[in-house]
Amino acid sequence: MSPRTCIIGAGISGLTAGKMLSDYGIPYICFESSDRIGGNWAFGNPNGHSSAYRSLHIDSSRHRLSFKDFPMPEHFPDFPHHSHIKEYLEEYAEAFSLKNNIRFRTAVQHARRLPAGGWEIRTEDEQVHRFDALVVANGHHWDARFPDFPGEFEGRTLHSHHYIDPRTPLDLTGQRILIVGLGNSAADIAVELSQRALDNTVVLSTRSSAWIVPKYIMGIPADTLFATSPHVPLSWQRRLSRKSPVLLTGRPERFGLPTPNHHFLEAHPTQSQELPLRLGSGDVTAKPNVSRLAGRSVEFADGTREEFDVIIYATGYNITFPFFDPDFISAPDNRFPLYKRMFKPGVDDLAFVGFAQSTPTLFPFVECQSRLLAAWLGGLYRPPSDEVMRRVIVADERRFVGHFADRPRHTQQVDYFVYEHEVRTKELPGGLRRVRERGPVALTGRGG
Amino acid sequence: MSPRTCIIGAGISGLTAGKMLSDYGIPYICFESSDRIGGNWAFGNPNGHSSAYRSLHIDSSRHRLSFKDFPMPEHFPDFPHHSHIKEYLEEYAEAFSLKNNIRFRTAVQHARRLPAGGWEIRTEDEQVHRFDALVVANGHHWDARFPDFPGEFEGRTLHSHHYIDPRTPLDLTGQRILIVGLGNSAADIAVELSQRALDNTVVLSTRSSAWIVPKYIMGIPADTLFATSPHVPLSWQRRLSRKSPVLLTGRPERFGLPTPNHHFLEAHPTQSQELPLRLGSGDVTAKPNVSRLAGRSVEFADGTREEFDVIIYATGYNITFPFFDPDFISAPDNRFPLYKRMFKPGVDDLAFVGFAQSTPTLFPFVECQSRLLAAWLGGLYRPPSDEVMRRVIVADERRFVGHFADRPRHTQQVDYFVYEHEVRTKELPGGLRRVRERGPVALTGRGG
Repeated sequence: MSPRTCIIGAGISGLTAGKMLSDYGIPYICFESSDRIGGNWAFGNPNGHSSAYRSLHIDSSRHRLSFKDFPMPEHFPDFPHHSHIKEYLEEYAEAFSLKNNIRFRTAVQHARRLPAGGWEIRTEDEQVHRFDALVVANGHHWDARFPDFPGEFEGRTLHSHHYIDPRTPLDLTGQRILIVGLGNSAADIAVELSQRALDNTVVLSTRSSAWIVPKYIMGIPADTLFATSPHVPLSWQRRLSRKSPVLLTGRPERFGLPTPNHHFLEAHPTQSQELPLRLGSGDVTAKPNVSRLAGRSVEFADGTREEFDVIIYATGYNITFPFFDPDFISAPDNRFPLYKRMFKPGVDDLAFVGFAQSTPTLFPFVECQSRLLAAWLGGLYRPPSDEVMRRVIVADERRFVGHFADRPRHTQQVDYFVYEHEVRTKELPGGLRRVRERGPVALTGRGG
Repeated sequence: MSPRTCIIGAGISGLTAGKMLSDYGIPYICFESSDRIGGNWAFGNPNGHSSAYRSLHIDSSRHRLSFKDFPMPEHFPDFPHHSHIKEYLEEYAEAFSLKNNIRFRTAVQHARRLPAGGWEIRTEDEQVHRFDALVVANGHHWDARFPDFPGEFEGRTLHSHHYIDPRTPLDLTGQRILIVGLGNSAADIAVELSQRALDNTVVLSTRSSAWIVPKYIMGIPADTLFATSPHVPLSWQRRLSRKSPVLLTGRPERFGLPTPNHHFLEAHPTQSQELPLRLGSGDVTAKPNVSRLAGRSVEFADGTREEFDVIIYATGYNITFPFFDPDFISAPDNRFPLYKRMFKPGVDDLAFVGFAQSTPTLFPFVECQSRLLAAWLGGLYRPPSDEVMRRVIVADERRFVGHFADRPRHTQQVDYFVYEHEVRTKELPGGLRRVRERGPVALTGRGG
């Protein structure tokens, strides 16, 4: 008997989780608030949870994106458009008959853990369901996060989450625009809005700055040329590669950007072929962090001051679980410690999939997590004791995140190559050994 | 006494020519058909001779563009916008009081050489003027050249000369667009029109293909890193640098483009940071040459066929002199042999400025030509005999253009660094020696 499992969300994390559970013959139901699969990659998703803008191409090449068990079609371009990703996920769902297990237009309103374990799930149709185990895959790129600048801005504001194109949802022509942030979205939006035909002035403000790297090196997708090795300490590898972005793009200061507050690869670099050129052509101007908002004026940390009509916040997302009681599970300031970014010590019938900022990309990462997930639910993997989990969480955080200033954006940083290698060579065999020694986690029958 | 001189055109060539003549105290009048200076760089020039589109940034960095005697302002971006160039030319004209000598809104309608030398110039106000010498600086980027494809296209067509932005002069949204050509304009227009927000499909067709190089290398303007040397044969230097674009951008075939029909630096490379990414993102598709037009369909040399709503020809320009009798001076197929791209054997009171495709850029090139021009009109330079000029023309063509298939686009190719070095170290001293031996060309008093 396998545990009856609930998956929340049918984005890439929920889909890969469902696919792996099917492989193991584990019964599950996936609740999806939208009428379609794809989550973030369903452009214009009616559930409001997609952050894709019309021009979005993924920053990783299809060679890195492919699920291992379902390669991307050869005819896809090197850097697929969001519509390609959606098409790919549709074909994935079709190939593995995933939609049969998905309840569409059925948001989970409340997930309550039963006193003796197991889950009571109340959905938006007021139905109550019981499950033995819960898999949370509701994503972390949909609840817009705003910085807390002193003062008030009297122009219009928009978060990159809601940005679609230069005329949607706001008419961004002939405007004085401030973009806050220097991640991929900030770079893409700055490039798009600074086209001369739109007659905007575009200023980009960044607190942490970023290393900008191209998508292509010598005509080859950059992310296929580099990979971290699981056999050499990460800190050494980061040290060795520190000069790479300088050799590829040049120092950020060359383009008027502040000096990054971190070394290369210590945070997700910003991949943009175009932003350095826009900065070097005078079409985008760079500023340091915002120090104060005052009416239509914005003051920057260097003491300069400019007037704007619109501020676009490309400042990332909150990790939010609207279906958990906040005092049971929440992620204040995006601090959300999990064992292998999946398991919460003390709650042995709950797993998370996709809660990471994975370098270089999330796609094979969630597939790897789903493999561990299915082994766990199938009785072939047992996590270590709560005490060991807590110790490893601290050590892993130090390794992957410890070099950061305390920034909500980076609390979930993980190196995919190291993670995948450890899951395959240590975590799965170790978990199987623990099953042999102590038996699997007894999940079945908990939900009643 | 100095020869009274007529300059036709107040673009960069006419302006630098005028500035040098002023330096030598040579009296001149410059006839300009427009109400403003700048020619090609006067965006929206009412005389219709500007090919600048709204988004145009020059492909050379300001470090290479600067006139030697009038550096570009430090606050200009690395790659100035056309409005910066116009501003710079205005400041240049102001600094050297050039506008006093310019007759605006006064197109030259006919230039007739008098039987005993000297020139009769008829302007659009029906005035007739006499001059001792004529300087032709009317530019060669204003008379749109179209390829001669078999068949008829029934959609709309536009030459890049008339392209302003995605909505001017045609509404280019939701269209199937074919762009013919792979020069800088073709690349810029393809990038601009392939933005997802415009909902176009963009196909780019090229006959000769091109080597694409970035504008920045390691954050440094690419054109400041490379310069040909006048001390090493050009063919050797071209051979040595053949691999550069492959190392910088990758082979064109990597992005679906045809193999170039020339080696790197044998023709002006296309400078685009963005086009390779658009091709690699599937937003622009590459095709070989057009083989036939048939209604809304276009057939390509690889046998494929597609339908289009619009064809944009970014196929270059004709060299045209509307004021000369065609059997006196014309440039069929842009073949226009000139000694040092300036002097026409047999016509000793005529000079051309700016009739070259100069690598890396035209700005310092026309300044260099103007120096030779002023020395000639000032009696300090005498060209060699007609026979020697004809021989050198053939040798120079072999050196600068000989490696080309017979293409109208490349008939004027010149390497600036080699040209400038030769003018400074050989041509000027040699011309002064000839003046001492045989006296200057007797120009004064010809116009009566």
